Amino acid sequence: MQLNNILEKLSSKNMDAMVVLKPENITYLTGFKPSSFSVLLLKDDPVLFISKMDFEDVPPNLNFSVEEFTSLSNLNGFLNEKMTFLGVENSIPLGVCKKIRNDFKIKITDVIDTFRRIKSKKEIKCIKKAINIAENAFKNTQLEGSDNVVAAELNYNMMVGGSLKPAFETIVASGTVSSKPHANIQQKSLENPVLMDWGAVYNNYCSDISRTRVETEKQHEILSIVIEAQKEAIKIIKPGIKASYVDKIARDVIADYGYGDNFIHSTGHGLGMEVHEGPSLSKREELKIEKGMVLTVEPGIYIEGEFGVRIEDDILVKNRAKVLTKLNKMI
Amino acid sequence: MQLNNILEKLSSKNMDAMVVLKPENITYLTGFKPSSFSVLLLKDDPVLFISKMDFEDVPPNLNFSVEEFTSLSNLNGFLNEKMTFLGVENSIPLGVCKKIRNDFKIKITDVIDTFRRIKSKKEIKCIKKAINIAENAFKNTQLEGSDNVVAAELNYNMMVGGSLKPAFETIVASGTVSSKPHANIQQKSLENPVLMDWGAVYNNYCSDISRTRVETEKQHEILSIVIEAQKEAIKIIKPGIKASYVDKIARDVIADYGYGDNFIHSTGHGLGMEVHEGPSLSKREELKIEKGMVLTVEPGIYIEGEFGVRIEDDILVKNRAKVLTKLNKMI
Repeated sequence: MQLNNILEKLSSKNMDAMVVLKPENITYLTGFKPSSFSVLLLKDDPVLFISKMDFEDVPPNLNFSVEEFTSLSNLNGFLNEKMTFLGVENSIPLGVCKKIRNDFKIKITDVIDTFRRIKSKKEIKCIKKAINIAENAFKNTQLEGSDNVVAAELNYNMMVGGSLKPAFETIVASGTVSSKPHANIQQKSLENPVLMDWGAVYNNYCSDISRTRVETEKQHEILSIVIEAQKEAIKIIKPGIKASYVDKIARDVIADYGYGDNFIHSTGHGLGMEVHEGPSLSKREELKIEKGMVLTVEPGIYIEGEFGVRIEDDILVKNRAKVLTKLNKMI
Repeated sequence: MQLNNILEKLSSKNMDAMVVLKPENITYLTGFKPSSFSVLLLKDDPVLFISKMDFEDVPPNLNFSVEEFTSLSNLNGFLNEKMTFLGVENSIPLGVCKKIRNDFKIKITDVIDTFRRIKSKKEIKCIKKAINIAENAFKNTQLEGSDNVVAAELNYNMMVGGSLKPAFETIVASGTVSSKPHANIQQKSLENPVLMDWGAVYNNYCSDISRTRVETEKQHEILSIVIEAQKEAIKIIKPGIKASYVDKIARDVIADYGYGDNFIHSTGHGLGMEVHEGPSLSKREELKIEKGMVLTVEPGIYIEGEFGVRIEDDILVKNRAKVLTKLNKMI
């Protein structure tokens, strides 16, 4: 059980306890997803603080003491006076920190994230199912009408297929709008190319896929460069190499064709309960690729005022990359 | 312009500058909504740091210097060495704080939130439009089939109606599931009662509505208590009273009927760019109601193992509460 490994790690780093706030971290450790603000106090006898509203949902076999969360200051009563070093997440709001007993020495730790980067068989199964839901939704969506209606259909089909919500704000950017990698959805007639980026959630785990339907010769040419960059990047993925190296490979291919300045985002990211997890496949990432990571590989070329193309697949790191997405790249 | 008022307020509180991270606060102050992580450095000559991806979207008339965001530490170059007190939001991640020059005295301030609580005419117009989209979506949704399909249709209709996304995870909880105020959506046949909680987003502003379709005599009885509680709460809303008093009024009505323990959440909250803003209509809230606030009023009764009923409307505080939602309470 990861909990014991994490407790050991905390103790080896001289932390007497850790305050966990990130919903995904709480779900990862407890198997339970509270619907409201909640706090997990990790220590030898961990305590989960949840809203009254969530009591009815607590699984009977939950291995944690459960208390009602009333205010941050009532956490202090559960912290032993002999404790000195308290671990917190990088993302903990400063306002929350200030309400915890102020004689603690606070240490930021990514111990939970480190464990979360390596997916278990069960987690991989959920991601595969989330991919499957997203791919089926796509197959049932007509690429016609207007940008927002296509996005609405993708979302509808994912939800009917078992996704509680889209994994993130679905992107359907057609025509010149596609040159903006994170474009807001427009209420306008669909044009070519159509850049779509969507994902489903299954049992808290996300998928994240992009496809671009192209039309003109130039669009086809750009698409083939993007596909080549993605292929080369996926080919070199294996345990032990730097995540930044994967980014470099994709970037080099695109630069060789003269579009280096048009690839204005990173090559990919970890995927799990959050759509964006570590490692980032980007220049400044210092992490290495490890077996069991699930990553997106998503190079793109964006020509201002003209159009953009992005292709994104989800891969599992085994001895090499295993591509989990099955959708054709030419749609 | 609010920016000058906020700068004056910061200065009157001895803050030399403020680091703004909350996307809604950045959009509120700049009128621009970056798609990626961005930072607004508020000072006499404010600077907005955004991702390269967002450059194409910057409006030509934006009144801020714009820089590419590369890392948190490059903010320091824009902070004058003579500055001593730096304002931050309550929600700023500790990890971010640690990367800002460490000779600053950091002060948490809610100055932007305070301004955001009072809505301008333009903001109210957007909220009304978001309400309109959500209400029309509801009218076009058939309450039949399964919980998740009804939710998918609500979302689809909102998106086709002009909402970029649902304002929050739409709730459709039918039968016994309705006894959980924040239930996850189930793939199961629709039963009565059907508790629905949904909202749209228009031009960054949210709506938030709940309705419950009831069937049996007991369900009708509970619904009429909830409606009475809501009516009494709305009736006493006016500028100057405590937000906690509104909660007390709704709670007293429900308690008088013997269901005090079954009303397990607060009576409402501020509504704007965020679905949940201050003030909270709850016991511990210390803020007062002010003219120009937009609030939800949403009492509910949840009977474990049986069912739950919630009714939620959005109101604007003028000399009294003006109810903005128009949907019938009996559906």
